[in-house]
Amino acid sequence: MVVGVWLVGARGSVAVTSVVGALAVRAGLAEPVGMVTEALPLRDAALPSLSDLVFGGHDITAVPLGKKAESLAAAGVLPAGIVASLSAELVALEREVQPLPVGETPWETAGLIAADIARFRERHGLERVVVINVSSTEPAVSDHPAHAELAVLERALQSGEQVLPGSALAAYAAFRAGCAFVDFTPSTGARLPALEELAAREGLPYAGRDGKTGETLVKSVLAPMFAMRNLRVRSWSGTNLLGGGDGANLVDPAANAAKAGSKQRVLKETLGYQPQGHSLIEYVDDIGDFKTAWDLITFTGFLGVGMRMEFSWHGCDSALAAPLVLDLARLVAAAHAAGRSGPLTELAFFFKDPIGEVPHGLADQWALLSRFARELPDA
Amino acid sequence: MVVGVWLVGARGSVAVTSVVGALAVRAGLAEPVGMVTEALPLRDAALPSLSDLVFGGHDITAVPLGKKAESLAAAGVLPAGIVASLSAELVALEREVQPLPVGETPWETAGLIAADIARFRERHGLERVVVINVSSTEPAVSDHPAHAELAVLERALQSGEQVLPGSALAAYAAFRAGCAFVDFTPSTGARLPALEELAAREGLPYAGRDGKTGETLVKSVLAPMFAMRNLRVRSWSGTNLLGGGDGANLVDPAANAAKAGSKQRVLKETLGYQPQGHSLIEYVDDIGDFKTAWDLITFTGFLGVGMRMEFSWHGCDSALAAPLVLDLARLVAAAHAAGRSGPLTELAFFFKDPIGEVPHGLADQWALLSRFARELPDA
Amino acid sequence: MVVGVWLVGARGSVAVTSVVGALAVRAGLAEPVGMVTEALPLRDAALPSLSDLVFGGHDITAVPLGKKAESLAAAGVLPAGIVASLSAELVALEREVQPLPVGETPWETAGLIAADIARFRERHGLERVVVINVSSTEPAVSDHPAHAELAVLERALQSGEQVLPGSALAAYAAFRAGCAFVDFTPSTGARLPALEELAAREGLPYAGRDGKTGETLVKSVLAPMFAMRNLRVRSWSGTNLLGGGDGANLVDPAANAAKAGSKQRVLKETLGYQPQGHSLIEYVDDIGDFKTAWDLITFTGFLGVGMRMEFSWHGCDSALAAPLVLDLARLVAAAHAAGRSGPLTELAFFFKDPIGEVPHGLADQWALLSRFARELPDA
Amino acid sequence: MVVGVWLVGARGSVAVTSVVGALAVRAGLAEPVGMVTEALPLRDAALPSLSDLVFGGHDITAVPLGKKAESLAAAGVLPAGIVASLSAELVALEREVQPLPVGETPWETAGLIAADIARFRERHGLERVVVINVSSTEPAVSDHPAHAELAVLERALQSGEQVLPGSALAAYAAFRAGCAFVDFTPSTGARLPALEELAAREGLPYAGRDGKTGETLVKSVLAPMFAMRNLRVRSWSGTNLLGGGDGANLVDPAANAAKAGSKQRVLKETLGYQPQGHSLIEYVDDIGDFKTAWDLITFTGFLGVGMRMEFSWHGCDSALAAPLVLDLARLVAAAHAAGRSGPLTELAFFFKDPIGEVPHGLADQWALLSRFARELPDA
Repeated sequence: MVVGVWLVGARGSVAVTSVVGALAVRAGLAEPVGMVTEALPLRDAALPSLSDLVFGGHDITAVPLGKKAESLAAAGVLPAGIVASLSAELVALEREVQPLPVGETPWETAGLIAADIARFRERHGLERVVVINVSSTEPAVSDHPAHAELAVLERALQSGEQVLPGSALAAYAAFRAGCAFVDFTPSTGARLPALEELAAREGLPYAGRDGKTGETLVKSVLAPMFAMRNLRVRSWSGTNLLGGGDGANLVDPAANAAKAGSKQRVLKETLGYQPQGHSLIEYVDDIGDFKTAWDLITFTGFLGVGMRMEFSWHGCDSALAAPLVLDLARLVAAAHAAGRSGPLTELAFFFKDPIGEVPHGLADQWALLSRFARELPDA
Repeated sequence: MVVGVWLVGARGSVAVTSVVGALAVRAGLAEPVGMVTEALPLRDAALPSLSDLVFGGHDITAVPLGKKAESLAAAGVLPAGIVASLSAELVALEREVQPLPVGETPWETAGLIAADIARFRERHGLERVVVINVSSTEPAVSDHPAHAELAVLERALQSGEQVLPGSALAAYAAFRAGCAFVDFTPSTGARLPALEELAAREGLPYAGRDGKTGETLVKSVLAPMFAMRNLRVRSWSGTNLLGGGDGANLVDPAANAAKAGSKQRVLKETLGYQPQGHSLIEYVDDIGDFKTAWDLITFTGFLGVGMRMEFSWHGCDSALAAPLVLDLARLVAAAHAAGRSGPLTELAFFFKDPIGEVPHGLADQWALLSRFARELPDA
Repeated sequence: MVVGVWLVGARGSVAVTSVVGALAVRAGLAEPVGMVTEALPLRDAALPSLSDLVFGGHDITAVPLGKKAESLAAAGVLPAGIVASLSAELVALEREVQPLPVGETPWETAGLIAADIARFRERHGLERVVVINVSSTEPAVSDHPAHAELAVLERALQSGEQVLPGSALAAYAAFRAGCAFVDFTPSTGARLPALEELAAREGLPYAGRDGKTGETLVKSVLAPMFAMRNLRVRSWSGTNLLGGGDGANLVDPAANAAKAGSKQRVLKETLGYQPQGHSLIEYVDDIGDFKTAWDLITFTGFLGVGMRMEFSWHGCDSALAAPLVLDLARLVAAAHAAGRSGPLTELAFFFKDPIGEVPHGLADQWALLSRFARELPDA
Repeated sequence: MVVGVWLVGARGSVAVTSVVGALAVRAGLAEPVGMVTEALPLRDAALPSLSDLVFGGHDITAVPLGKKAESLAAAGVLPAGIVASLSAELVALEREVQPLPVGETPWETAGLIAADIARFRERHGLERVVVINVSSTEPAVSDHPAHAELAVLERALQSGEQVLPGSALAAYAAFRAGCAFVDFTPSTGARLPALEELAAREGLPYAGRDGKTGETLVKSVLAPMFAMRNLRVRSWSGTNLLGGGDGANLVDPAANAAKAGSKQRVLKETLGYQPQGHSLIEYVDDIGDFKTAWDLITFTGFLGVGMRMEFSWHGCDSALAAPLVLDLARLVAAAHAAGRSGPLTELAFFFKDPIGEVPHGLADQWALLSRFARELPDA
C-alpha cells in the first residue's frame, strides 16, 4: 500500500526532520527511535510501512530542502553525517515540494491546492494521500457564520471572502481532493462544522489537534498520577521558552493564547477540576529548537500538608514531532483504507487538544490507540 | 465489619500520622485527601469503612502518641489544631500500643507478639486484624537455610537462633495469630519462602513491599511515558535527601543499598532495559520529613538527538504514606474476608517493590487495583 | 538616639513582619537572622540600636496589627508562638498606626500626612523619623511637567491636580515634615526631579528603590560570576510565581511591567550587554507569600560551546524584606544624623533598582556599604 | 616573552581543548570566551600573549592529538570545523608530546621527565616553562615521613621507594627542571612540605589546586550572598553527575572523597560555619564531558522562616577548564618572570582548593587577582 504524505509547510523544521528521518531509517542510517508505530504493540499492526511513504507538499518559502536540512544539522537537530548522505535524495525531492498557489478567490486557491495534490497522487500512482499540516501556528480565528455550514462556506469562498485561515483552507482543499487530513498544529485546520460536514460527506477521516511533544506530554502522565493518588493539585504553572520559527510566531499574543489554552486543558480533563496557574510561552531566540519548559506544581496531601514538584524539560521539538508525523501518516492512511471517516478520536494519544470526548491521560489514550491498531484489518 | 489494624512501629511518624488522620477524617476535621479508597472508583468498593478501623500496635520506644503527634505538628506534618482536638483520643489509644515483647528465644518472642495481637482482637471483638509493618528500615539480610522451609525455620527459632530480622519475625507472628500482613517498608517482612509457606497453610493474604510515596511514584508514570513514545532513556540518576528517623537509619550503607535498589527496579520493568545511573539516598537532618528528590533523565529522540528532563519532588513522606496505610488496611481486610490467601499482587499500585510478576507502570497497576476492588464481594 | 520609623502601608505583610521582628529580637525571642546590620562588619558601625526604633505609620486598611500578624502566622511567615507573646505590644502599637488622611487637594493631603508624622515625632520626643514606603506596588506613572520642578509641582498640588501617585505624595509629605525617606517598593516615591529638589533644599537623605529580596539578589551575584569568568550569557529568562497582596496587585500589567523591567537591569549593568530573555511575573494565589522564581541562563564558553544553568528560589518575601527594612531605618537615620542629604547611593546593596551611577554586582555594593558604615561618625 | 606550556596529561580532554583553543584564537577562528586574561581588567596586564605560548607535554596514552580532537568534536566539546582547520598544526604538535618516561627508580624517572622538559625548552629557546598538571585525578595519598623534608624525600626516591604519586613526582621534576608548576587537578601535586622546600630553594612559583569550573564556582558566589545577607544556611547538598575520563576515575571512592571534600570547603570558609550536607560525585557515562550538578540549599530567614534554593549547572568541563589553563600559563609565567617564588596565593580565583590563607568568595578572589595583575611589572 503506497501512501502519499502531503506536508503543508514542507520546508519547515518539522517537515524536513520527518522526511530526512524517514529516508534515514529506510536506508538503515538510523533507528526509528521516537516512532510509536515501530515499537510493540503497534509494530505488529496492519500499517503501511515506512518505505511505502512518498513525500510531497506545499510551502510559502523556497529554501531548498537540503539547505534547510543543513541548517537543522548545524543546530544539532539532525546529524550532519545523515544529511550529507541523503543530499541527492533531498535534491530529488525538490520537485515534489511546490510553492503554495494563490488564486483570485479562496475557492480558486483551494482548487489549485487540490489540483497539486491530485497531480502528486497520479504522478506516483498513489492509492491515497494523507495531508498533514505542519506549518507555523496561526493566530486564533474569530467565529464567522460561514464556518457553520458547508454550503454557506463555499459561497463565501467563491465570493472572495477570506473566511478561512490558511490551515482550514488546506483542510478544505485536502477533503476536496479526497484526502485524509491531520492537524499537527494548534491552528484551526479541519475543526469547523462546515469542514466536518465536508469530511463526512466525502467519507474522509481526519485527526488532530496540536502534536503533544513536550510539556503537555509530561502533564498527561503526571496529572493522572495525582488523580489516582487522590492528591489535590492546588496550582500548576508552566513556562515554555522556545526559539525557532514557531517561537517567533508565538510572540503574537493571539497565537500564544491559543497554544497556552490547550496546554492547560489536560489538567481539567484528568483532575476533574482546574487548578490555579497558567502556562506561559516566551520566545527566546537563542534557545532555538531546543525548547525548555519548567513547571511548578503545588499540591496538598493528607491533612492538608502542602507539597510541591518541579520539572524541567529540555526537548528538541522537531525531533519529537517528526516521528509522530510519520506515525500519523501510517495510522491515518490505514484508517482511511479501512473505511473510517470523520474524526479519529482513537489517535488522541498524539495530541495536546484531541478531538471529541476522549480520555486525556496518556495511559488511557495509549490503551485506546493500541486497540485501534490491533483492530485494523489486514490491508 | 470491624477490623483491627495492628501497627508494627506504632509510635513512629507514619503510624501516628495514619492514626491521627483516621481519627480526624472520621471526626470530620479533615478530608481524606491522599486516600485512594476514598476517591472513585474505589470509593464504591465493598470495603470496611474508615470508622470500622480499630488501632493498636507494638513499638520499642515509649514516646506517648500525643507527644509524637505534637512533634509532628511542630515539624509541619500534622496540623496543630487537629492534634489538639484529638488529644483525649490519643491518650485513650495509649493502652492499645504495647512495648514490643522479648522472649528467651525468637520462638517465644513470636508467641508473645501473637498473644498481644490475639488479646487486642478479643478485647475489641474483631473479626480480623491486619498487621502492618511501618517500623524503620532494616539492613538487608543475608540468606540463611532456615528461610527456605517452615519446619527448618521453626526449629531454628526454637533453638534460639536469630535467623529472622524483626520485620520477618513480626510477619511470622502475625501469621501465627491468623492475621493478614502488609510490608510497608523495604525490610524483609513476609518475603521468605518459609513465611510464604506459613501464610499459604493458614490461608492468609499478605501484601508489599515498600510504600511508593515519592520519587518512585513519579518514575512509575514517567518511565512508561518514555516507553510509550519509544524514546530511548540513556541515564536516570536520582538523589534523595531526607532527614527524620528513616533518613538517619538509611545512613547505614546496607539499608541504603536495599532501598536504592528497589528504586531503580521500576525502570528495568517498564522500559525493558536498565538505563545508566543510580538512585542515591543521603541523610540531611535539617530536611526532616520533607524529602527532596531530584532526578535527571537523559534520553535520545529521533535520529539520536539528545534531550533531558529533570524533576524535583518535595514531599512529606509521612503524609504521603499514612493514607496508603489506611487504604491497605481496608483493602487487605476485604481480601481476607473474601477468602483470598497468599500474595495480593493486585495491590502492586501501592509499592515500590511489588510481589510477583506484576506491571510496574502506575496506570497498569491502577487498572489491576480497580478491577480487584470492583470484584470484591459485598461483605 | 531614639529614631522613629514611619511605615507607609503599616498594616501590610512587610510592615507587620518588620515590627513583629523588631519586637521579637528586642525581647530575645528570636535572633536577628537576615539583618545585615546585626552581622559583621556592620554590627560595629555607629547606628541606632534596634531598641532605639519607635514604630508608627499610615495605612488605608484597618485590619488590626494583631489580626494581620495571626494571619501571617497561619501562612507560615511568622511563628505563632512569637505572635502570641507579643499580642499586648501589638495592641499598644495600634494607636501609632493611623488611617491615611485625605484632604481636599493633594496639597492638603500632604499637609495632613506631614502633620501626623510631626505629632508622632513630638509624642515620642524623636530626634528624627525615617519614612519607609512598604505599601503595594503602584502602576508605572506617566510623565508630567509638574514632576520636573518643585514650584510647578506645588502649584499643581494646590490646584487639586492628581499629578503624584500615592508613593510620591508620601515622599513629598515626608520631606515637608523634615524626614528622610526610603522607597522599598518599585513605585515612584522620591524619584522625581521636583522631589529631589525638595530633599536637597531641606537637606534630607533618601534611599531606594525596590528591595532586593529574591531573584534579583541571586542575579546580582551570578551575573558578575559570568562576567568575571568572561563567559558569554546568551539568554536569561525568569519566571516569578507569587501570591499574596503584592502578587494580586502585579496582575495589573502596568505594575508588572514596572517590576519586570527593574529585574533585568542588573544584567545589563553587570555584564555590559543585555542578554535575550525577560523576567515574567505571574500571580498564583495558592503560593501566597512564598515566592517561587525559576531562571534559565544559557551561556557560551570556550570555542562557542553552549551551556546552561537553572535555579529555583523559594523564598518568603516578607521574611526577606522585613530585616532589610529595619537595616535601612538604622542606616538612613545614621546618615541623616551625620548630615548627609540627597540620594544615599551607598545603600545600593539593598535595592533592585538603585539610585545613581552605582555598581550592580552584590560584592561591589557590599564593599560600598561596608565603607559607608565604617565611616559613619559616632553619634 | 616566549613561554613554554608543558602539559602533564597532554593527550587528555582538558589539554587538547586548551591547545586547540589557543591555536584557534590565535588564528582568528574563535573568540577568547572564557579566558579571564582576555577581558578587562586583566587584558591590560603585562602578560605573555597567547601567541607567545608554545605547547608540549607528557602522556601515558598514545592517542594522536588530532584523533582526540575529533572525538571531542563528536562529543560537542570542540567545533568540528575548527578541528578540521587545525589538523596540520595538530600533527606538527605531535613531536612535542612525549610518552611519560619510566626510570629504574622514581629519582631516575624524575630525571627523565626533567630532561624532556629541558630539551623542549632548548629546542624552542624558551626563557621559561610552566608545567601544568591536567591529568586524571589520583586517589588521595596517605602521609609518609618522606613528604616532610626534601632531603629525606630525595633519599627515598633514590632508593626506589614509591613515596610520591604521579602528580607530585611531576611537580618534583618540574622544580628540578627550573619550571613553575600549576596543579589544575585535586591530586597532590606540589602540596607537600618537601616540594615546597624545593620550590623555595629554587626560587620557583607554583599555583593550585583543582580548577574551579562548575558547581564550586557557583558556590563561591552564592555562599557569600547568604553570608552578606546574614541568612543562615542550614544544609547544602550537591550531586555531580559526570561521565568522561575524570568521571570514570572518580568512581574510585578514594578519589571521589578527595574531590568531594574540597567542594564543601568553600562553604565553611565563606559562611564561617559548616552547614549540613555533602557533595556527591556520581559517574554516568552517557553524560560525557557535560557535567550536571544539582544543589539544594535550605536556609533560614527572619524569625526562623525556612526557605530553599536549588540550582542545576550543565557545563562542559573541558571547555570551562581549558581557557583557565591558558590564563594560568600566562599569569604564572609572568609571576615567574617577575621573580615571584613559592605559592601564588593571588590566583585563588581559579581553584576549588586554593593554597594558603586566602578568601574563598569569588569577588574577594577577583579583587586579589586584579591587584596582582595590575602590579605585574612590564616585561
